[in-house]
Amino acid sequence: MITGKNYIGNTLSSKGTISYKTFNPQLNVENPTEFLEATREEISIALGLASEAYKAFRKKDGKQKALFLNTIADEILNLEDELINTYCEESGLTVGRAQGERGRTIGQLRSFATLVENGSWVEASIDPADPDCSPMAKSDVRKMFMPLGPVVVFGASNFPLAYSTAGGDTAAALAAGCPVIIKSHPMHAGTGELVASAVIKAAEKTGMPNGVFSNINAGGISVGSQLVSHSSVKAVGFTGSIRGGRALLDLASKRDEPIPVFAEMGSVNPVVMLPKALENRATDLGKIYAGSITLGTGQFCTNPGLIFGLKGKGLSIFVQTLGEEILRVVPMSMLHPNILGAYEGNKARAISQENTNIVANYNADVKANYAQQGVLTVDGAVFSENPTLHQEVFGPFSIVVQCDDKEQLETIISKLEGQLTGTVIADNNEEQNYEDLISTLQNRVGRLVFNGVPTGVEVTAAMHHGGPYPASTDSRFTAVGIHSIKRWVRPISYQDWPNNLLPKELQNENPLGITRSINGEISTRKI
Amino acid sequence: MITGKNYIGNTLSSKGTISYKTFNPQLNVENPTEFLEATREEISIALGLASEAYKAFRKKDGKQKALFLNTIADEILNLEDELINTYCEESGLTVGRAQGERGRTIGQLRSFATLVENGSWVEASIDPADPDCSPMAKSDVRKMFMPLGPVVVFGASNFPLAYSTAGGDTAAALAAGCPVIIKSHPMHAGTGELVASAVIKAAEKTGMPNGVFSNINAGGISVGSQLVSHSSVKAVGFTGSIRGGRALLDLASKRDEPIPVFAEMGSVNPVVMLPKALENRATDLGKIYAGSITLGTGQFCTNPGLIFGLKGKGLSIFVQTLGEEILRVVPMSMLHPNILGAYEGNKARAISQENTNIVANYNADVKANYAQQGVLTVDGAVFSENPTLHQEVFGPFSIVVQCDDKEQLETIISKLEGQLTGTVIADNNEEQNYEDLISTLQNRVGRLVFNGVPTGVEVTAAMHHGGPYPASTDSRFTAVGIHSIKRWVRPISYQDWPNNLLPKELQNENPLGITRSINGEISTRKI
Repeated sequence: MITGKNYIGNTLSSKGTISYKTFNPQLNVENPTEFLEATREEISIALGLASEAYKAFRKKDGKQKALFLNTIADEILNLEDELINTYCEESGLTVGRAQGERGRTIGQLRSFATLVENGSWVEASIDPADPDCSPMAKSDVRKMFMPLGPVVVFGASNFPLAYSTAGGDTAAALAAGCPVIIKSHPMHAGTGELVASAVIKAAEKTGMPNGVFSNINAGGISVGSQLVSHSSVKAVGFTGSIRGGRALLDLASKRDEPIPVFAEMGSVNPVVMLPKALENRATDLGKIYAGSITLGTGQFCTNPGLIFGLKGKGLSIFVQTLGEEILRVVPMSMLHPNILGAYEGNKARAISQENTNIVANYNADVKANYAQQGVLTVDGAVFSENPTLHQEVFGPFSIVVQCDDKEQLETIISKLEGQLTGTVIADNNEEQNYEDLISTLQNRVGRLVFNGVPTGVEVTAAMHHGGPYPASTDSRFTAVGIHSIKRWVRPISYQDWPNNLLPKELQNENPLGITRSINGEISTRKI
Repeated sequence: MITGKNYIGNTLSSKGTISYKTFNPQLNVENPTEFLEATREEISIALGLASEAYKAFRKKDGKQKALFLNTIADEILNLEDELINTYCEESGLTVGRAQGERGRTIGQLRSFATLVENGSWVEASIDPADPDCSPMAKSDVRKMFMPLGPVVVFGASNFPLAYSTAGGDTAAALAAGCPVIIKSHPMHAGTGELVASAVIKAAEKTGMPNGVFSNINAGGISVGSQLVSHSSVKAVGFTGSIRGGRALLDLASKRDEPIPVFAEMGSVNPVVMLPKALENRATDLGKIYAGSITLGTGQFCTNPGLIFGLKGKGLSIFVQTLGEEILRVVPMSMLHPNILGAYEGNKARAISQENTNIVANYNADVKANYAQQGVLTVDGAVFSENPTLHQEVFGPFSIVVQCDDKEQLETIISKLEGQLTGTVIADNNEEQNYEDLISTLQNRVGRLVFNGVPTGVEVTAAMHHGGPYPASTDSRFTAVGIHSIKRWVRPISYQDWPNNLLPKELQNENPLGITRSINGEISTRKI
């Protein structure tokens, strides 16, 4: 049952007076529950509990943390249709999408459970003592990861489950041993509270300390600022706009003790279509990209917002097909009237730029909150000179940039801002003639895709989801996949430390049987 | 030969008019060479060259980079006595220390050469395609590290070789594939230029692109600010004061594109002496710590500035012995009159605090620029209330904090700022009764030392040199040892990328024979 209250640790709390409601974009009405924004006092209690909980939680072993994570997954499934229905009512997304995203969320929780149960993720590294070393005896030094401390996670509007309350950031932080304070996303506060109730149940069932998890409601930005500025908080996870992410980064940088902010922000995900591919399969590419641009009503951070090609017959056919196909896509609602409003504003601004051509702009009647997709073309020279056209239009919209030649294309790519992905479409090994271009593209992105679409991010160890700023605030860390756990930890070394006081991961006997690096050699052996 | 000029890439350049000289603290005179501060134009040329060089340098394979690094080491050795003499003239340190530090510098360069020649450091991770995966075919995704781009390294005053021009930061950055621009430390500009000449020679001999390395002279702070603010720079390495490191971090955070700053800053390196150890060996500990506090005239970031014990006979004997022994140490010069001045000021400020007791304060006549060592005691309650006493006094000085009980000690430790190290001195397994205290200490430090001294940092894989702020700006990365290479790289993923266009590290055949993670299993196998 959704109460509209905050979880301050395990306790439902509603001391505040500021309230807000979520919105059903399909029905174009507010949902009934009133959510009460957390007060300064409630926030302070939640952070105090988190700091205390950290002391006990970071000592939980991998099996205990795995049980916690798996129990969260079980409890989320136990929410059954109430969760799916609330998700749909608060996002306008389909039941299929809700179920798919729940599956992804469950999968993430279980994959982190497996990771910490196995235990090797701590990157244990041991350099045994060498008393005969010259000029001085060498100490025994051993290193592994330890959790940073309480972490604040900001839920993402476009992933009410997989990148919100018990999504990727939370699963990774809990797996690392960090208590999590969620700043619930106001657009899906009910979904958030339901998932939070599942996390709290799991924490209680598996004996986790009170304060290991809190869920904080907030309609505006001041609660988030308080959280990020608080001295108990040791790191921040965020998925959202460049403006929002940058504001948090700036806040965190100004603290007495600056803390890391992992913000996964905007991206236009450039796609480069090489001439032979356009010559051979312009029509197919037009169809495929009409699908990728409108997938999830364009509300993915990997949405292809810029497509580049060299002028010619192939590109013309591609543009024509893309325009026709995208108009065939049945419009869908966006997550919230505010997101639709931003989309319409950004699209209109792009279209109003000089020397651009509208290829497609859906303009039949649509229901309230439904997005009208569009495609624009622009010449490379015009694009080069107009930074407005480089900016993300979050929604089902893309710009095709028609370049005069390879050199112009490469120059444009070299000047793009940092991106999550860069895609190359090529046939007949033509990519081998574009080595410099690809090298330039690589420099601007976190993931290179060949002959595919950027949408769809596999949750695998080898996935890197993050790119040079402003795609993310720290390109060295991924927001997707098991390596995202590295955002929430720091190494600690033990020098000549007594074996029985070492964490099990570093003890001579290797009681957990984990993989370790001993004098640079990787093994599971004892010492 | 020292010219006083800048290396702008491979070219000696002196377009500026602002000049400065280094200082011989032993002779208390300026050294003769005039160093010319780089102009804005020279800086701009160096950064342009670095950006261009990055394109070619990042494609050099491990063998080529290893040859470059080993040749730098060779060329540094070829500088022979000119380097050692200049080092001594600019630092006042001994020939033995100069030779030792040169050995460490050479060792670091060669260890990074070995690392990149082996190649496994890129953490290659491969998740092969799975066309049968349900509900959707799985893409082939492969990930490895790539270099960030041009890096600015600020030389450290207290390590003219090992943490300056071709020191740890530079060796790691070049190994990663990042061009390096050195902001030469003005106190040892001649040592810096000599080492820079060795790097440039090595770059030319091994066919590295012009701009892979530049050495920028600067007497003040404006050149450093220009470097950190420049859009071509992608990361910063710094070793020095909290004030200096924080200023760079703030500059980097305000850029349009914020960049990581790895500043290894101050630390007071708390030492906790438990009662049984003090009871059993107070005298020995007094002698050992008199040595650790005065090692290198206290000019190490791991110098033990705070020693904690519980009041009692053992602690009294320790304090008495420490006071006597430290006065027996023969004073030595500090690196520069400015550093001595800061030491004297900070020491006087600590001594002037209310309710502190001077145990030792060397006051015989000393030569100019020689430091007078000292020890102060203070009660736990007084220390708790006076933050001034928590601050680093860089030099041969330490405060012994006499605590009433375990609880007071633990509370004090929990409120310390972040530290590079924390040391526990214990006998007869007494440490087992101080689990909470040790856990609290662990939370504040990057390295725990048992029954030793914090000074002396082994260059090993398991060493972590960095701690919670303000010990360093990013506790997740080490400044010492091969893992420090991770500061200068970011992961990139390749999705369905053609095998022949992949970096060798990710190709099916594993032509480099490196260790990779394939579907989570670590091996050197082909695919």
